Amino acid sequence: MQYKEITSVQNQLVKQILVLKDKSRERKKTGLFIIEGQRELMLATKANYKIKTVLFYPDLVSDDDLNSLISSEIERIQISRDVFEKLAYRSSTEGIIAIAEMKQHRLEDLIPIVSGPKKNPLILVAEAPEKPGNIGAILRTADAANVAAVIIANPKGDLYNPNIIRSSVGCVFTNQIGVGNTDEIIAFLKAHEVSIYSAILQEAVDYHKQDYTQSTAIVVGTEATGLSDAWRLASTQNIKIPMQGEIDSMNVSVAAGILIFEVKRQRNFK
Amino acid sequence: MQYKEITSVQNQLVKQILVLKDKSRERKKTGLFIIEGQRELMLATKANYKIKTVLFYPDLVSDDDLNSLISSEIERIQISRDVFEKLAYRSSTEGIIAIAEMKQHRLEDLIPIVSGPKKNPLILVAEAPEKPGNIGAILRTADAANVAAVIIANPKGDLYNPNIIRSSVGCVFTNQIGVGNTDEIIAFLKAHEVSIYSAILQEAVDYHKQDYTQSTAIVVGTEATGLSDAWRLASTQNIKIPMQGEIDSMNVSVAAGILIFEVKRQRNFK
Repeated sequence: MQYKEITSVQNQLVKQILVLKDKSRERKKTGLFIIEGQRELMLATKANYKIKTVLFYPDLVSDDDLNSLISSEIERIQISRDVFEKLAYRSSTEGIIAIAEMKQHRLEDLIPIVSGPKKNPLILVAEAPEKPGNIGAILRTADAANVAAVIIANPKGDLYNPNIIRSSVGCVFTNQIGVGNTDEIIAFLKAHEVSIYSAILQEAVDYHKQDYTQSTAIVVGTEATGLSDAWRLASTQNIKIPMQGEIDSMNVSVAAGILIFEVKRQRNFK
Repeated sequence: MQYKEITSVQNQLVKQILVLKDKSRERKKTGLFIIEGQRELMLATKANYKIKTVLFYPDLVSDDDLNSLISSEIERIQISRDVFEKLAYRSSTEGIIAIAEMKQHRLEDLIPIVSGPKKNPLILVAEAPEKPGNIGAILRTADAANVAAVIIANPKGDLYNPNIIRSSVGCVFTNQIGVGNTDEIIAFLKAHEVSIYSAILQEAVDYHKQDYTQSTAIVVGTEATGLSDAWRLASTQNIKIPMQGEIDSMNVSVAAGILIFEVKRQRNFK
């Protein structure tokens, strides 16, 4: 099959892709982001992301690969080795660079997930997480635990930073994710009668002594500043992980994992 | 007080410090490594690391600070702003750069910790961990859980990589750490009647259904290749975290945290 081809790294589309990878602002302006890798593209497609254009490096991707990944209506552009190496992260992306539309991540889109009788959803809320590696690890944990939703409060950037996509190994696509500011998230959780368990030291019970078998939101803050005061005031119960070492500190994605899997354990992984 | 001073970034000691930060090989050859930061230096001193020389930038560190951190016998060298900026990571190191001697981390040094009646030690074993960020997070978890020891099997590098020290926020100093190859670690654990619970999918029980109230080693492998076969053969019982998502994957430091804190929970944090 004959494809349109880009062989120059000076090409306008190549430049736009580089800006979309690099700049949150450009992503926000255009509503577009970049997906690298066959597996990531497969997961995004499965999650109904709208794919606009797929660039492929034919030495690494066959026509059959492409046909199994994307429908025939999606624009396909063949790229040269130079262009692929210019665009790809460490050439570890299996010959695929796709331009896709971001999702909105509105809280209201989560309503079918959290409301309704006997759903008892488990929701993980992370306030203002900063490091892409931690966000990625949290999304992997959320996928593994099959939580109903992940909600990011007061985000420091968008979810489509290439480092987040990469460190989440595609779990940014597999999770139901909502984004909002803290006040509207608290209102949303309360409106749907989800109990709020905030990881806050003050007036906290040890996390393993709390019952989480009903509708549960586990809320974690940043390592530097913890959770904002609104969470303390809105909490059904503050919870803490007993710290018995010399340093009162734990990686935020590890802490989230411990809390989420205690909920899972109490629910017998059902 | 009058101190020896270094003002040139071309100084030989400055060059040696940069090489010690950068090269595992140089650390191995000399037995020395670099500590940045007042807190890290305090923790290392408390853990009986031998400090050889402390370089300080007087605008950030006073004589009183120094006197409270280190004994008067330790060599102190004042450095200029240029030299400090050349040596320090993002100038976030509170004006202190110290040269210290590495510890040996012999398994036999752990004997007093693991043997003896009713100690029921909890040991975390990580085989061939690669990313400094993950090693740091694991060491923070180990400190928080106050495990008896952390053992690194078949290490990919030494523990004194600046990225490990930094991401461990000093927990590389607060933990009892042993290092060895997998075979000798298995022999060591068996000799001291420590049950081995390997995070391996085959023939595994769900982690939360295993009893860990006796002497316990939790063993985790790499994300890419898991644990080597020797662990499967040596296991008292393989354990697994039920994975219920679309992607069968979890960050290794998160998985270690979930397993370690399940042990702690079963022991009621005693």
